Amino acid sequence: MSTAQESLATARYESPRHQVTGYQEGKTIYPVYDDAVLGFREYWYPVLFSHQLREQKGVGLTLLGEKVALFRSEGRAYALHNRCPHRGVPLHGGFCDFKGTITCPYHGWVYDLDSGKLMAALTAGPDAAIARRGNVQVRTFPLEERGGLIWVFMGEGEPPPLEDDVPEEFLHEDTVVVGRITERGGDWRHAAENGYDEGHVKYLHRRGVWTFWRRAPAWGHSKPREDLPWLTRDLEDIGYGAEYPGLGYWPKKQFWRHRPGARGIRIRLPGTLRIQYLNWAHFEWYVPTEPGRHRYLQFIVKRTGLLGKLLLKLKYRFYIRPFFHGQFNDQDAWMVELMETPPEILYRPDRSITSWRKFVETHARRNNTSEESA
Amino acid sequence: MSTAQESLATARYESPRHQVTGYQEGKTIYPVYDDAVLGFREYWYPVLFSHQLREQKGVGLTLLGEKVALFRSEGRAYALHNRCPHRGVPLHGGFCDFKGTITCPYHGWVYDLDSGKLMAALTAGPDAAIARRGNVQVRTFPLEERGGLIWVFMGEGEPPPLEDDVPEEFLHEDTVVVGRITERGGDWRHAAENGYDEGHVKYLHRRGVWTFWRRAPAWGHSKPREDLPWLTRDLEDIGYGAEYPGLGYWPKKQFWRHRPGARGIRIRLPGTLRIQYLNWAHFEWYVPTEPGRHRYLQFIVKRTGLLGKLLLKLKYRFYIRPFFHGQFNDQDAWMVELMETPPEILYRPDRSITSWRKFVETHARRNNTSEESA
Amino acid sequence: MSTAQESLATARYESPRHQVTGYQEGKTIYPVYDDAVLGFREYWYPVLFSHQLREQKGVGLTLLGEKVALFRSEGRAYALHNRCPHRGVPLHGGFCDFKGTITCPYHGWVYDLDSGKLMAALTAGPDAAIARRGNVQVRTFPLEERGGLIWVFMGEGEPPPLEDDVPEEFLHEDTVVVGRITERGGDWRHAAENGYDEGHVKYLHRRGVWTFWRRAPAWGHSKPREDLPWLTRDLEDIGYGAEYPGLGYWPKKQFWRHRPGARGIRIRLPGTLRIQYLNWAHFEWYVPTEPGRHRYLQFIVKRTGLLGKLLLKLKYRFYIRPFFHGQFNDQDAWMVELMETPPEILYRPDRSITSWRKFVETHARRNNTSEESA
Repeated sequence: MSTAQESLATARYESPRHQVTGYQEGKTIYPVYDDAVLGFREYWYPVLFSHQLREQKGVGLTLLGEKVALFRSEGRAYALHNRCPHRGVPLHGGFCDFKGTITCPYHGWVYDLDSGKLMAALTAGPDAAIARRGNVQVRTFPLEERGGLIWVFMGEGEPPPLEDDVPEEFLHEDTVVVGRITERGGDWRHAAENGYDEGHVKYLHRRGVWTFWRRAPAWGHSKPREDLPWLTRDLEDIGYGAEYPGLGYWPKKQFWRHRPGARGIRIRLPGTLRIQYLNWAHFEWYVPTEPGRHRYLQFIVKRTGLLGKLLLKLKYRFYIRPFFHGQFNDQDAWMVELMETPPEILYRPDRSITSWRKFVETHARRNNTSEESA
Repeated sequence: MSTAQESLATARYESPRHQVTGYQEGKTIYPVYDDAVLGFREYWYPVLFSHQLREQKGVGLTLLGEKVALFRSEGRAYALHNRCPHRGVPLHGGFCDFKGTITCPYHGWVYDLDSGKLMAALTAGPDAAIARRGNVQVRTFPLEERGGLIWVFMGEGEPPPLEDDVPEEFLHEDTVVVGRITERGGDWRHAAENGYDEGHVKYLHRRGVWTFWRRAPAWGHSKPREDLPWLTRDLEDIGYGAEYPGLGYWPKKQFWRHRPGARGIRIRLPGTLRIQYLNWAHFEWYVPTEPGRHRYLQFIVKRTGLLGKLLLKLKYRFYIRPFFHGQFNDQDAWMVELMETPPEILYRPDRSITSWRKFVETHARRNNTSEESA
Repeated sequence: MSTAQESLATARYESPRHQVTGYQEGKTIYPVYDDAVLGFREYWYPVLFSHQLREQKGVGLTLLGEKVALFRSEGRAYALHNRCPHRGVPLHGGFCDFKGTITCPYHGWVYDLDSGKLMAALTAGPDAAIARRGNVQVRTFPLEERGGLIWVFMGEGEPPPLEDDVPEEFLHEDTVVVGRITERGGDWRHAAENGYDEGHVKYLHRRGVWTFWRRAPAWGHSKPREDLPWLTRDLEDIGYGAEYPGLGYWPKKQFWRHRPGARGIRIRLPGTLRIQYLNWAHFEWYVPTEPGRHRYLQFIVKRTGLLGKLLLKLKYRFYIRPFFHGQFNDQDAWMVELMETPPEILYRPDRSITSWRKFVETHARRNNTSEESA
């Protein structure tokens, strides 16, 4: 990219007179993205590791602004709206009195886990009119278990095939998935922008165990490229250090940095990042819970045999989890929680951010019905 | 009750098309009940055990939305508005420099505990105009001590005789009262409805030590009956278990359950529940503090001699308190705090709830003056 | 002052019909004071002890409602707006990659600490347009270090000489300053009024180690006197005890109280109290942080030689700090946090408070520009 082109490209973002306003107040040039305070509903989202949902020990959580109960009965996992329509208490603390059902802990209303239909109201006897009439129902959500994970669909429309939303690496027989799931402060879009952000890796993450041996570029020129369903970026004209006039040389040359850094960073809807490492891939999801908070799911995915699986688990536990999913990404959590935009003043590497905003604007799957009613 | 009648009676509550809207938003068919966010003021309420208010150690709390200071001087207990009109600080941390008075801890303004009148402003000397003029006064509330408890009246009108509001069991010479007083989350009306609720006992409370030996009905038909000042309900057509088509038998037959459960459940204004056990009665009050929170007072009351008193105290400490006032009623606290209505869909046993709402609507004692000004 | 005069003077404050409304709602007779929810900006404020700001360990805090980063580079301390205009994260966690600059921890934007100008965006390389264009700037605040303290000026206008706002005792070569800095709940004006309040010392502070040996007046008549930049009050007609008709004698005569109390209490803008003790002076500042909270800075100041300095530090650590800056002033913190005015009913000694309000109204230094824009 020539200097002339560059200054044209950056002028749009960098000048205070042209501050790109963000997505927390007013209207911006990305209305679809702006409105998605609670994310996009017409997608499959990962929620928990399968082993975290134990038989008859329900789990209650908030996803996309809605209360969800997860419950396992006879091995199968179910998701339903976490509110008994009788007196408004959560269902996830309920019991499994009959297989394939959940009983509300308060008055013994029994719901079919598949359909959400009220099957009986135990404390009104077997002839209870409320159950016989058959018009009480709790909303259920499609749920699938693949790759050791529970995936839930909360959209209004017909769910697409799981394969449309779950990266194919998760779906093989010999896939191993390990990871860390946390709740974090910060808007899910700030989290996604931070994940795909080109510039921060080169400064924020320079410190820490995970990058200690890696030779990280100090800057580069990246070009966004759509590779559907992914958005990716290719780094060109990489620089590893320079003299800054009037300031000095940066970064300090550190002889021990010789290992290559991560390459191949891509992002897709509904907010899924993929980073390619030598032998495995790292994924992360940003799932909005309530406004300004999100569920942060990080996974290492590898296809391997039994021994490889054991070694990966060991390496994960003692190296990747504490230093990559822990220390490294806690540096991001620190920023994501404190980030306050708009206003913002963008610079050249933020083309990664604006290309993602544009990508969402163009490609977000939305339900026509709910759009009309909005 | 015939099936035809029943389905008529329940239709009003159970069909989603006829959802009875509750009392947190908008207008309902029970406006008096709806408006009582902070309860009804024209009643005597129990507040503390007498022994909890020690000489010259004031207690500050919030009742019916108002700050109250309790103070004991020379054996007698007093209640007053917990705010010095000088600079707005609470009085309950104050001192007793002269008998029958409380001194504000900040500037030494001395109030007569009986009338609330400012008697002196110590830090302005004995000639202080502010005290001589006699026009500064803190509101005081009528207070009585009976049955080992402190009762306070916060209404605008003339207080009725204590006997009108305090169940007669509390007023005998040989009455023993033991109990537990806690602050809980949840609307006081949710707490009252939960207390008188017919259905939940049969499911929510089936687990736990307190009911372990008791043979509890699984359902029944109850008829509300006014027995002023009480509202009571008589259970008929009790069932202990049945086959639910397509589900199975419920509840499991448990041979060890043979002791009778509680009988005789009644409720009255301003939010007082009474349950008859074999040798004693259990009472509970739900006293609103601020919107969405209440003070929960549980008492065991028995008329007995000295030895009986000792035995009751032992039994209370080691059995009734941990398992009934503790574990059993903490199951209720769990529900009351999480309950979210409206909307709600009621079923047959909720006639207990609607009869209580109707009872309040008809019988609540209110002050005409304050109604007019409202 | 004759009784007739007195009752005229107090009538304005004490009668409920003439309640002086305070400063939290509506308009009062002191509009400048009322509006100063976040204090007065055109003054130098003490912020930290110099030794609390260590080389390259930035400190972030909120002052007068604004986020401020303090940073020390090569011995010199700087203050700047604690927000990177790029993505809105705080700067105080940043690094010093080049002397006289701070680098944002997120993307390596380098700011000149003196001017706040963006010097480089490290992760966009040495040719980054955003830095070359020179139109990105973070606001910086004038900062001075004197008397072992960091002083910051956050006004819109030209800062006055430090000597205009810092009491001269802080500015000598042989001055020693020790003290305690805390964050407290409560409006800074409640804190200032409490500090200069004539009456409370005589009651609230009667208990405690600090005043145990002191013979404190029980009341007096004080006359406000302007001694610019100070407002001071002279106590006359002091009384040490009296019989209160119908109540009794107060205070109890305590033979061990013989040491003189503090004399010479004065206050000045922007909220600075000075109390003269025998060998040293006590100062305190109330610096608003956010509405309803303030930073409370207490200092003991003395001019002395090396040995005197050592002795003062010992005495401070083991006596003055725990019992005066600790226990004694925590009694004030208790009140300041709970104070709720308006409404208020004032009495004679509150002339100290109203004279301070009037003093602020008349003398507060304000910026004409910001007034016009308001």
